[in-house]
Amino acid sequence: MLKIALDCMGGDYAPIEIVRGGILAAKELGYKVYLVGDQEEIESILKKSGELNNPNLEVVHAPDKVEMNEPPSNVLRKKQSSLYVAGMLVRKGEADGLVSAGNTGAVLAVGKFIVGAEEEVERPAIGVALPNPKGKTVLIDVGANVDSKPRHLVQFAVMGHTYAESILGIKNPRVGILSIGEEEGKGNELVKETYPLLKQTKLNFLGNAEGRDIYAGTFDVIVCDGFVGNVILKASESLGLAVVQMIKEEIKKSWLAKLGAVLLMPALNNFKKKADFTEYGGIPLLGAKKPVIITHGRANAKAIKNAIKVAGEFLNTNFNDILVKNLKTLIPEEAKV
Amino acid sequence: MLKIALDCMGGDYAPIEIVRGGILAAKELGYKVYLVGDQEEIESILKKSGELNNPNLEVVHAPDKVEMNEPPSNVLRKKQSSLYVAGMLVRKGEADGLVSAGNTGAVLAVGKFIVGAEEEVERPAIGVALPNPKGKTVLIDVGANVDSKPRHLVQFAVMGHTYAESILGIKNPRVGILSIGEEEGKGNELVKETYPLLKQTKLNFLGNAEGRDIYAGTFDVIVCDGFVGNVILKASESLGLAVVQMIKEEIKKSWLAKLGAVLLMPALNNFKKKADFTEYGGIPLLGAKKPVIITHGRANAKAIKNAIKVAGEFLNTNFNDILVKNLKTLIPEEAKV
Repeated sequence: MLKIALDCMGGDYAPIEIVRGGILAAKELGYKVYLVGDQEEIESILKKSGELNNPNLEVVHAPDKVEMNEPPSNVLRKKQSSLYVAGMLVRKGEADGLVSAGNTGAVLAVGKFIVGAEEEVERPAIGVALPNPKGKTVLIDVGANVDSKPRHLVQFAVMGHTYAESILGIKNPRVGILSIGEEEGKGNELVKETYPLLKQTKLNFLGNAEGRDIYAGTFDVIVCDGFVGNVILKASESLGLAVVQMIKEEIKKSWLAKLGAVLLMPALNNFKKKADFTEYGGIPLLGAKKPVIITHGRANAKAIKNAIKVAGEFLNTNFNDILVKNLKTLIPEEAKV
Repeated sequence: MLKIALDCMGGDYAPIEIVRGGILAAKELGYKVYLVGDQEEIESILKKSGELNNPNLEVVHAPDKVEMNEPPSNVLRKKQSSLYVAGMLVRKGEADGLVSAGNTGAVLAVGKFIVGAEEEVERPAIGVALPNPKGKTVLIDVGANVDSKPRHLVQFAVMGHTYAESILGIKNPRVGILSIGEEEGKGNELVKETYPLLKQTKLNFLGNAEGRDIYAGTFDVIVCDGFVGNVILKASESLGLAVVQMIKEEIKKSWLAKLGAVLLMPALNNFKKKADFTEYGGIPLLGAKKPVIITHGRANAKAIKNAIKVAGEFLNTNFNDILVKNLKTLIPEEAKV
């Protein structure tokens, strides 16, 4: 039986929505869920839900927590925090994976330093499957690392390839490196140094991708440094919010437009479901020793259940074994500089 | 009388829409416009428009052109191309500014190497005023430079400040440096080295901005390396296109939604006008000796006229004089490392 450590104190709707998500996972997926956090609060929620005696739900007390606005590195000193304790359950092998809706930077720190990196992996990286009209494109890294070296980007490419193939079911994924300008030789120093290494790998490397390729479906995996990926991801989210707000203000000015908006709502909601990558169930830290799934701070019970399901998919597909094999076989010695 | 060199052979709708834009500018703004490109083609358009004898429109023959998909650096060898010839008109002082809808990289090359950098400016940079629900935020640099050094980012900040204040009319603009994480000390090496320098300037420096700040109206100027700015800008454009396409596909599935879309159209068009930064009339290469305005490849006559108008605004406000003064007075010697 798969066992997942769930940080119940992180996230905007913690602990209630998180605990409820854990309950859903235990009941619908049949996983064992360690509910880590304030024992009293968690048990009170379990009691209200009539799940206090569910053998698949085990409360692990952690009196402290990491706040959303706290410097992420604090978590490594807060050894009684729900996130740290959940990370330790994974480290000790009591749990097979970690899910948290808490402070993203803190989850990353726990993933990198408590759960640790898988064999062959130099730096775990965050891969996010972004939607486009034709499917999904994995952007990696979106914030686990800054000032990456060429050899790190090559590893990210293999991680992204493995994620696209094993989890998203994309065969022979088309891999690109994010740059400005299409032709080889265009870009910054990092891109120029990484390009020839990627060419030497056994990946289906198509060359430079540009910013416009991210949402166009022209690549399945796009590799970049985590600084770049992070600002793109956050800019995209903020663009989405700004567009919605600006359109709403225009709609307010006309009752015909208001009626139009009402009629459009079901279509917009369908779009939103496809576009909102946080609905898929969270973003994985690829290359960690065990699945570490970061969900949006706004995650509700369903999103938490989905994140636990994603952790399960990583485990059921033996993702890490495939990743280690791919890192060994797809990158020739010459490209490991 | 202001004199603008217009590259008539660059852009998706060249030469006809470009020439028509030049005609609009001559008639509505009263500027002299040098129409640079194939003399026969341009004169034929002028003739059809009844403007062959307009003294404010002067055709300058250039037999060659730079294609949209050509390596940008080619322009420096194509000395008979419309873009190069237009750049030379500015360099020689015959024209006061340059407008082109052509190959962006090639326009940049002409701006940097033919028009050249203004006194005090080490590297010209592209500043783009991006829309948000509260107004506009200048993102600089969005692609003129890669692998920028801290001192370049400090100059970009002053250029963005001057653009926001002199052209956009924003008083005491709030300046940030793009990073991941809000607190000082977060980010990559470039950000960590630049932060203390920006603190020493006389700019209204608020510290780190995050990707989510770009479209949120929380800063008036956000500084970044051109690689980062370029991929963000292009990703934003491609996200916009992807969202429109995905929503259209959802709308197709229901006639009620189709009706809703029709009713919403006027509001959406209003939004589009505000959001489409290409409608403002092009993007300036800040820090060039004379205004160099890059418009979208899809620019029509109106967009070209607007771009010429923007070039005029830079000249009429003595933008470059203010910029040079700001570079001298806002950056203390200690921050010029």
